[in-house]
Amino acid sequence: MSDQDKKHGITRRGLLGATASGAALLGGAGGARLAMLGGAAGVATAASTTPASAATEAVTLAPGELDDYYGFWSSGQTGELRIMGFPSMRELMRVPVFNRCSATGWGQTNESLKIIKDGMSEQTRDFLAANGKEVHDNGDLHHPHMSFTDGTYDGRYLFMNDKANTRVARVRCDVMKCDKITEIPNAKAIHGLRPQKFPRTGYVFANGEDEVPMVNDGSVLDDPSQYVNFFSAIDGDTMEVAWQVMVSGNLDNTDCDYQGKYAFSTSYNSEMGMNLAEMTENELDHVVIFNIAEIEKGVANGDVQMLNGVPVIDGRKGQNKKYTRYVPIPNSPHGINTAPDMKHVCVAGKLSPTVSVLDVRKFDALFEDDSIDPRSAVVAEPELGLGPLHTAFDGKGYAYTTLFLDSQMVKWHIEDAVRLYNGEDVDPIVSKVDVHYQPGHNHTTMGETKEADGNWLISLNKFSKDRFLNVGPLKPENEQIIDISSDDMKVVHDGPTFAEPHDVILVRRDIVNPVNVWDRNDPMWAETRKQAEADGVDIDDYMDTVIRDGNKVRVYMSSQAPMFSLESFEVNQGDEVTVVITNLDDIDDLTHGFTLNNHGVAMEVGPQATSSVTFTAAKPGVYWYYCQWFCHALHMEMRGRMLVKPKAS
Amino acid sequence: MSDQDKKHGITRRGLLGATASGAALLGGAGGARLAMLGGAAGVATAASTTPASAATEAVTLAPGELDDYYGFWSSGQTGELRIMGFPSMRELMRVPVFNRCSATGWGQTNESLKIIKDGMSEQTRDFLAANGKEVHDNGDLHHPHMSFTDGTYDGRYLFMNDKANTRVARVRCDVMKCDKITEIPNAKAIHGLRPQKFPRTGYVFANGEDEVPMVNDGSVLDDPSQYVNFFSAIDGDTMEVAWQVMVSGNLDNTDCDYQGKYAFSTSYNSEMGMNLAEMTENELDHVVIFNIAEIEKGVANGDVQMLNGVPVIDGRKGQNKKYTRYVPIPNSPHGINTAPDMKHVCVAGKLSPTVSVLDVRKFDALFEDDSIDPRSAVVAEPELGLGPLHTAFDGKGYAYTTLFLDSQMVKWHIEDAVRLYNGEDVDPIVSKVDVHYQPGHNHTTMGETKEADGNWLISLNKFSKDRFLNVGPLKPENEQIIDISSDDMKVVHDGPTFAEPHDVILVRRDIVNPVNVWDRNDPMWAETRKQAEADGVDIDDYMDTVIRDGNKVRVYMSSQAPMFSLESFEVNQGDEVTVVITNLDDIDDLTHGFTLNNHGVAMEVGPQATSSVTFTAAKPGVYWYYCQWFCHALHMEMRGRMLVKPKAS
Repeated sequence: MSDQDKKHGITRRGLLGATASGAALLGGAGGARLAMLGGAAGVATAASTTPASAATEAVTLAPGELDDYYGFWSSGQTGELRIMGFPSMRELMRVPVFNRCSATGWGQTNESLKIIKDGMSEQTRDFLAANGKEVHDNGDLHHPHMSFTDGTYDGRYLFMNDKANTRVARVRCDVMKCDKITEIPNAKAIHGLRPQKFPRTGYVFANGEDEVPMVNDGSVLDDPSQYVNFFSAIDGDTMEVAWQVMVSGNLDNTDCDYQGKYAFSTSYNSEMGMNLAEMTENELDHVVIFNIAEIEKGVANGDVQMLNGVPVIDGRKGQNKKYTRYVPIPNSPHGINTAPDMKHVCVAGKLSPTVSVLDVRKFDALFEDDSIDPRSAVVAEPELGLGPLHTAFDGKGYAYTTLFLDSQMVKWHIEDAVRLYNGEDVDPIVSKVDVHYQPGHNHTTMGETKEADGNWLISLNKFSKDRFLNVGPLKPENEQIIDISSDDMKVVHDGPTFAEPHDVILVRRDIVNPVNVWDRNDPMWAETRKQAEADGVDIDDYMDTVIRDGNKVRVYMSSQAPMFSLESFEVNQGDEVTVVITNLDDIDDLTHGFTLNNHGVAMEVGPQATSSVTFTAAKPGVYWYYCQWFCHALHMEMRGRMLVKPKAS
Repeated sequence: MSDQDKKHGITRRGLLGATASGAALLGGAGGARLAMLGGAAGVATAASTTPASAATEAVTLAPGELDDYYGFWSSGQTGELRIMGFPSMRELMRVPVFNRCSATGWGQTNESLKIIKDGMSEQTRDFLAANGKEVHDNGDLHHPHMSFTDGTYDGRYLFMNDKANTRVARVRCDVMKCDKITEIPNAKAIHGLRPQKFPRTGYVFANGEDEVPMVNDGSVLDDPSQYVNFFSAIDGDTMEVAWQVMVSGNLDNTDCDYQGKYAFSTSYNSEMGMNLAEMTENELDHVVIFNIAEIEKGVANGDVQMLNGVPVIDGRKGQNKKYTRYVPIPNSPHGINTAPDMKHVCVAGKLSPTVSVLDVRKFDALFEDDSIDPRSAVVAEPELGLGPLHTAFDGKGYAYTTLFLDSQMVKWHIEDAVRLYNGEDVDPIVSKVDVHYQPGHNHTTMGETKEADGNWLISLNKFSKDRFLNVGPLKPENEQIIDISSDDMKVVHDGPTFAEPHDVILVRRDIVNPVNVWDRNDPMWAETRKQAEADGVDIDDYMDTVIRDGNKVRVYMSSQAPMFSLESFEVNQGDEVTVVITNLDDIDDLTHGFTLNNHGVAMEVGPQATSSVTFTAAKPGVYWYYCQWFCHALHMEMRGRMLVKPKAS
């Protein structure tokens, strides 16, 4: 037994096995709990192969047919946003956000670096400098959600979190590019994220998952009693943090109501435990309810601490104010989803086989009268199966919950669950279907809006094992489409995906209306335009200009298939070179690129867009640049030379 | 008119339009040539929508059904290799190669950095240092090809080029990870790449596309008369460059014979022109034939220059040796593909509407007798349509050529084309089918081996325009599957892909047999193992050890769902910290990860694998690390703390 194990009085190896003694060590676990500890290891092994059916054909599109829905997929630790056609499950686009994208130059172009750096804290800047880097080139993007107006998607923006480096980003739906990334101060590990549903977004609510000292500067280290957690409200229009609330327990997932009054978050570690045994000790954890109007009042009245420029409300347990309420929920609750009936909120128990249903109409009372039991907001708590994680809705009164350990989706009726909780003899469970394997998030078409249409359900499964051709030790996830047009759900499609799509939204296609060609006045390259103006260059027109400014050289080129306006340019070894390219082509789909050979430089330049990149020309010689985005029959001839004169020795 | 334009005596704007005067400026262009110059801009606009058909269903798999083929896809400027299931066109895996991968830590882990740096030139090391970088984080991966034994795939390795930074990489097919990257000296912009087909791979042949001074150190700059190009033969077993051949004209695509005697490359710029007008001046460019045995003899006899450690043969025009022959081919030829009949080589004309068919049996004579006209190796030259780029084969005597400008695939009969060339009255063209739009590469199942099975054809189209839901100015490519079971080809599936899959091979699934779990003795982490041994740590077993070595700290942890063996560790601000994780789980699909919050650190650790990462702990405070690869019901609880003590001030 290692010293560390001894310190906590448990044997780690014992804990990890699905043994009675291991489970017993966690204290008070029942049978369901016991089974869970052996969880992931015990993924089912038999692949069920359904013969191709009419249902499968329903998700198959013939050449040229368009999908009915946009699927906006997170990519987990890949750090990008993905756009899929749904239900065909074809990947239409990757939008780089928290990653470094070789294709588009995201994380390398001056325009993208500005976006990434603008929202960066001083501390991160210092940390990166000490590590010889300008920006983070990884992220963990879990939850992509669209902006709302009046309870449904409005097609303006997508918002998403980075758990790895504590950031929130925004993607513009007109061009499908990220335009803002904000590092969230004070909090650590932004996890759950949802936009305000009513009257509009408005706020983007974001959970800090990791508890840390309030001022995390090293003055407090191994003293968990001084750790806190932060709930953040970000202004979706400015992408600045409007306010934060300090809470007890860490925060997991979040959602909000359709009335614009409350947001709410699950906490799987109300214990504020520092290891597995401590984190899972309590049979009850909680949901924190945030009273938005009261918090705004508190901020206006100055009942805050200012921490790193953000007004922070103290909403911890026992603070005796009207900012937060804590509703006890069994056991390490995870997913939290508001139903399109605009009343019910489903909280998945994870280590409890139950989903706890809250009724938002009961929340006012909790804040008005301290003596009311917070559990009075719970109006149902059906036992659904092992490892409930997330719930989706069809707009017809049914809910669909993923059961991680059972590897199933369960369909159940919300009102029936309420009746059961009230003592009626009714079974809310309609049916279950096996999924392959271990589902996390799920989602229904338009399911998190008041326009949930009940057409399709998707299950995002964490393991795929034997469902696809073997591609080595690392396997894809498996996203399965489920036909919910009848009571018995049918799995109609297996869709492999690269690590690790966490969540998805499925948006009716009429809501999303991107442009085909950039507007020359787009703010993306406003800084570059300013520099060009200072240099006397018109970046909206044909350019073939080289500006020398000390050892800084700015190369302004336009591109039009199949030529760059400059067939060559000359610089001196050691010069800092900025290449600015404006794509004069204004035709759909006519993207150009600029790649500079052996210089690690490559970027996308969309139709009518400007992009720029800066590097040091450190090696003398002849280096070709070329268009890497196929543009013309003479695309390969679209190239030119950078001539680097050697330093006089 | 700009000075640059004046210098070359053409107006750029004139050249870019599809006008008679623009075309005339290029000199001597016929009607086909004329049409080509307006090429890409004129992509067809009407989407043809075929109703879902029996053919479309043939590519649709029911849940749990496995694909018949592995598709190994390049990703162009995305820099990764992609593995798709074929014909379902589902993405099974992304294998990072020339990119920085946020999910796996490729480009960040010590193990991947070693692979990337090991094959790096001194010059690149210096260049990167001057730019504050360790490695390139972009690439342009065009051509993925599997190792051969006796004329067909053997499932050992995949080889691929990086045009952007002049590299060749290898992926191990047992684990589907890159294990070698070699920067090719002397050459610039590795483009075409093919492995030797017989007796085995053996050599990997790779083209340098960009012509540069022989010693590219800045002593020669704007003097194209001194530029040369390099053809490289890399040893596929060691991944070292065996030899290079200096050639006249730049090199585009390459292939080799089934007899192990010859490799051959197209040249679209035999003129060695420096701009579009010069590059497209000649009506005839050429294919260079490389005589492998003669080159090996020359190397053995020392008839070489040693350049950057590589023996370089002079195979330029007029060198009067038996190393190379130049076969004139109309006009800027691009794709070159050897047919499974093991005799014919199809060279696509690009700016000529023809495909020139060479017969490898005629090559011996060219080398034996200087007086023989190299054109005698041409045995057919059918006119197929506008913009022929690449040719695929069905093993039944038919060839399928992409027509970029016509946006079509043409099916034709090789022997009939030979008969036509010999004066018989026969039409080799069987049928044409529209593709959407502007196809580049194409491929058939097993089509570049002697086991071509003629089951499926795929067309990799450069533009998708209106074929999918609009996702903004940047659109996906479109890969279309074509049913070739009858004379009239049928497009049965539209598959969008992210920028810019260049090429693909389709490999029968029985040939590829990856493992599910890593072997603890895998060489990937041999260096890390060595360091652990020096530190007295057994990295094959449970570890929870922190080693301090001056201001270097090595943290050895094991992971087993749902725990890291260390719940916390402490370091000092400014320490260089190396975290080594060994995943003790030995179950299929049970990958763990290690992400360190706000430190830009994330890596994959496969079942039974070891991965490590090094960074400077520059900021005091509490930072959580977590497993980012879903592993267990208690996955979210799989986390621990790094405590960074502040510097004593």
